Amino acid sequence: MTATTYSLDESAHPLAGAGHVGAIDLGGTKILASIFAPDGSIVSRSKKMTRAQHGPDVVVERMAEAMREAAAEAGIDAKEIAAVGVGAPGPVDTKAGVVRQAPNLGWENYPLRDELARHLNCGVALGNDVNVAVLAEYAAGAGRGARHVVGIWPGTGVGGGMILDGRMYDGAWDLAGEVGHITIKAGGPRCGCGGRGHLEALCSRTAIVKAIAKAEKRGAKTDLSKVTGKPILETTSGDLARALARGDKVVEKVLNRTAKYLALGVASVANLLNPELVVLGGGVVEALGDPFVEQVTKLVRKQPLKSVTSDLRIVPSQLGDDAGITGAALLARQLSA
Amino acid sequence: MTATTYSLDESAHPLAGAGHVGAIDLGGTKILASIFAPDGSIVSRSKKMTRAQHGPDVVVERMAEAMREAAAEAGIDAKEIAAVGVGAPGPVDTKAGVVRQAPNLGWENYPLRDELARHLNCGVALGNDVNVAVLAEYAAGAGRGARHVVGIWPGTGVGGGMILDGRMYDGAWDLAGEVGHITIKAGGPRCGCGGRGHLEALCSRTAIVKAIAKAEKRGAKTDLSKVTGKPILETTSGDLARALARGDKVVEKVLNRTAKYLALGVASVANLLNPELVVLGGGVVEALGDPFVEQVTKLVRKQPLKSVTSDLRIVPSQLGDDAGITGAALLARQLSA
Repeated sequence: MTATTYSLDESAHPLAGAGHVGAIDLGGTKILASIFAPDGSIVSRSKKMTRAQHGPDVVVERMAEAMREAAAEAGIDAKEIAAVGVGAPGPVDTKAGVVRQAPNLGWENYPLRDELARHLNCGVALGNDVNVAVLAEYAAGAGRGARHVVGIWPGTGVGGGMILDGRMYDGAWDLAGEVGHITIKAGGPRCGCGGRGHLEALCSRTAIVKAIAKAEKRGAKTDLSKVTGKPILETTSGDLARALARGDKVVEKVLNRTAKYLALGVASVANLLNPELVVLGGGVVEALGDPFVEQVTKLVRKQPLKSVTSDLRIVPSQLGDDAGITGAALLARQLSA
Repeated sequence: MTATTYSLDESAHPLAGAGHVGAIDLGGTKILASIFAPDGSIVSRSKKMTRAQHGPDVVVERMAEAMREAAAEAGIDAKEIAAVGVGAPGPVDTKAGVVRQAPNLGWENYPLRDELARHLNCGVALGNDVNVAVLAEYAAGAGRGARHVVGIWPGTGVGGGMILDGRMYDGAWDLAGEVGHITIKAGGPRCGCGGRGHLEALCSRTAIVKAIAKAEKRGAKTDLSKVTGKPILETTSGDLARALARGDKVVEKVLNRTAKYLALGVASVANLLNPELVVLGGGVVEALGDPFVEQVTKLVRKQPLKSVTSDLRIVPSQLGDDAGITGAALLARQLSA
């Protein structure tokens, strides 16, 4: 198998094209559907709960329904949608249109592309959610003008995606970009995947709140749970940002360590791939904002090889919540082109 | 700056072409020069000591002299050489033809390509030594038929190179492939570059012999130094292989740990890049041979994500000492094509 590559026509607006296209960002909690106009602008949005517990067929129906609602809101008939792009969580076989594994959804080898196409009667293109978000940043966000871009997305897990030499890089079996599963601290904390000391086991929200809970258990004083009214393990990225702003020393200490490990991850990727730009996105980065990105950047600058790290640009995601649908719309444009 | 890419015509013998080309593998200790015939075969070899202590101009003269000797041995006039390819240690600016930094040679920003071209009166192409070795394995060795190949070369340091989607990947500033400087064990042993817990600080020969010396200092019993007649820190990869064969328990323990860390490095790279093939080369792997590669492979198979590691092929370099000149000859062929 060879890698799927998406190359972009840099002379035109990356999201412009003939007709309207649809874009869906499929998450474990919610479905976000949008219509993009021929000029590339977002003309409507529709949101639905995913309700993954009811099984994939229900989820696909809800996706189709969200798409139809977005079309109605955009003042077009669903039949006028030229193509639909979808960003889905977990590893995806882009050529077969299959979601291989989506623990958040409880899916395994689900033929999402063809099922959704049957509901919507139009072409559907499928990609991994973080991969398409990085594609979006490359084409229409923080990565414009760069040819070698790595995206690192710490949220519930740590996702990633890569544009190498101006093309999205998928690897031999469409599985590239699992930056969350590079080992940063051999023998370190257990990762959700079973490994140890992976970037995800050190820098995901899950890892952060586990570290805070552990510190509290050992006697460190934090009012995090009291303020949020939730167990520490249910702390959101937004809660973390507010606790930091309140001056919670335990949260601050854990987030400082998170920044340190994330910087080691960025430096590792930089030494291996020598990108000119690293985009940091995902829930944790969205919530903590620029100061966190600046903290990570300073730590990366201290890491060798200096020839690689000193001029590396490190920026926050520009598209934020729209990165997913924007990347999905790019897939749709490429399909309908 | 964009990446230089070398694409290969897979229908022809990768080293065949019009006329004879020259290839030089420049090392810190020795210069290896060769002539490749139009049919792609190696027709002569010449070896010289590098004598880096006399400065770059002397080294370039010695390279030119070795090339002329190889030509004479091949029965051709040096003027008949269509082009010369060079693999040089350290980061290289392939477009400018400059060796940026070669600690083994004491060079910084040396314009090797143009200096050598002046001596030889023909076109010269320059690449990093490990990059060209991996290119050689891809085109004419263990990597034939694969499109996504990562090479990891543990020797004095740990070098690397990547063929992604059928093209050599150099990164934004020609610095990609520094797999030796990905962090595997945060806070771990100091690396030559100043970092901590880098793959090179765990798996290079330098790291291995340091670990053995440290174990001996702490009272572990090894007759390594007695048998080789050298201080432990001067142990070669061959000495290590012989000590292992003799049943030296200290050496065995350190090499087991080396295999473990190397497996974490391979798994990290696999999760990030999803290659179909990893080629292991370099002095340590050459000396320890297939059993070591098998040991590493078994350890990689245990690492998540299984979707990435379970079908990953891990093989030893096939070209061995010829990988450097073969890759250099490929550069020369591309230049003269």
